[in-house]
Amino acid sequence: MRARAPASAANLGPGLDVLALALDLYVEVEVEPAECLSVTSDGEGADLPTDACHLAARVASAVSGHDRLAIHVRSEVPVARGLGSSAAIALAAAAAAGADDPLSVAAREDGHADNAGAAFAGGLVAVNALERGWRVSPLPLDIGLAFVALVPDRPLETARARAALPAEVPRADAVFNLGRLALLLEGLGDRRRLVPQATGDRLHQGPRTLLFAEAPGLLAALEAGGALAACWSGAGPTLLGICDERESGAVAGAGRAALADAGVAGRVLELRADVEGLVVGEDARLPARRGGARRGPA
Amino acid sequence: MRARAPASAANLGPGLDVLALALDLYVEVEVEPAECLSVTSDGEGADLPTDACHLAARVASAVSGHDRLAIHVRSEVPVARGLGSSAAIALAAAAAAGADDPLSVAAREDGHADNAGAAFAGGLVAVNALERGWRVSPLPLDIGLAFVALVPDRPLETARARAALPAEVPRADAVFNLGRLALLLEGLGDRRRLVPQATGDRLHQGPRTLLFAEAPGLLAALEAGGALAACWSGAGPTLLGICDERESGAVAGAGRAALADAGVAGRVLELRADVEGLVVGEDARLPARRGGARRGPA
Repeated sequence: MRARAPASAANLGPGLDVLALALDLYVEVEVEPAECLSVTSDGEGADLPTDACHLAARVASAVSGHDRLAIHVRSEVPVARGLGSSAAIALAAAAAAGADDPLSVAAREDGHADNAGAAFAGGLVAVNALERGWRVSPLPLDIGLAFVALVPDRPLETARARAALPAEVPRADAVFNLGRLALLLEGLGDRRRLVPQATGDRLHQGPRTLLFAEAPGLLAALEAGGALAACWSGAGPTLLGICDERESGAVAGAGRAALADAGVAGRVLELRADVEGLVVGEDARLPARRGGARRGPA
Repeated sequence: MRARAPASAANLGPGLDVLALALDLYVEVEVEPAECLSVTSDGEGADLPTDACHLAARVASAVSGHDRLAIHVRSEVPVARGLGSSAAIALAAAAAAGADDPLSVAAREDGHADNAGAAFAGGLVAVNALERGWRVSPLPLDIGLAFVALVPDRPLETARARAALPAEVPRADAVFNLGRLALLLEGLGDRRRLVPQATGDRLHQGPRTLLFAEAPGLLAALEAGGALAACWSGAGPTLLGICDERESGAVAGAGRAALADAGVAGRVLELRADVEGLVVGEDARLPARRGGARRGPA
């Protein structure tokens, strides 16, 4: 069976571990019965070992209860950059292996329920752990928004990014993020109401800047270049400019110039929200790309 | 000049100091030129001293720049119960005294910007302090919701309720509230999606329970009686059952029984959201009440 899941940007500033947005880069996973385990991988992440430790193999084997599987992964999503690659692979692999509840499998095997929730449902979501399992809340999203991703070439391991966060925070900072989360939801639902302060955060972006000192300057450059707001994508290092679709090209140009000025090697992707989420079956192929503007398998 | 402002319930569980909802109990304030200061007061709060220290007098004098004012206050909003009485009085007094920006005046003089924001705009709002002043974000609200308020006879001073809160909180608790805030906004925007966990909170209701030990049992009774969710209103002691309008009577009955069972003297009010917010001018009179079901001036 075949399944496709989108990339995603979690946190988006104030919504730490809660908010996530599906983006139109995709992972496709195919799982077929075989005599013994094989994993092949094209596109992003193709340089990772294709053994039984590959995330898609672990997930598909866990769902199937055995490893007599031929698994093929094709990905457009940069790995370890804060774009939800592992959540998308886990979700698509779980679905392609026939899981009844691929979201729970992905959240358990990969650990990023926020990314998995967005990849599952598409669009903008908030994720909560309730007694009966994960609750994915769909939230209003203005489809006229575009997302410019600055993707540094150097990865940032999520575990290291998380270890930078303090266990205790001032109550005032928690309240600050609650306010900004509501402000962000207002703006993501209607881009005319999106203001730069909406991505304000006091819970994680500050400590993470110790691992990526150029980030504040790059975020400021995205806003100066026309983004309505800017934030880290997940635990980084990808940074996101949120803009009107008509400004996407200008913001991307400003982002390219800012990366060069800062001496940060990387690429700039002009993305849109994905609104389909997980797709299972024959339709679950990677979209054909016109003009080859994006990396990934043709 | 005359102005009217509604009561409000702040916090609503997860949205500490950020989220607030306007409710259909009202304060009316009239301010007229006079030879010297006089304050008269009808309805709720009429037992408070009507001298220059009265909140309406302080606010109207600050706006006018002098105290040669005759001020008349009529209120349906219980005082010091967590229903935004002081924010409504401050807002209406500022507007009746001719303030250009009554919201800023009320937030400054009274200190409760969340309540003042809801009283100003009506409906459900989130309030953020931005560089240029207060930003009130209107949020979707299902008009089929009703709000059953259990209002204990004993007041709970906001300052005391606030002093009960710790200055530092676990980051995991901040994240918990972020998730529940998004879940609550989903449910308040569409009551079919409102679940009891949506009012979950780890930032303030727990510590405040030390000041009102019966609260958890009363909240549980509201939910058992048909409320979709239940929470503290502001810093309490008022507790709120959020329900479908068709269940309001049943939930109110359960609330009355629970108060009696717990030995807590108090009253039960069946409320709806106010969607008008601040009204200034001749229309700013208290609504006529049919059947006298609520306390307050006729």
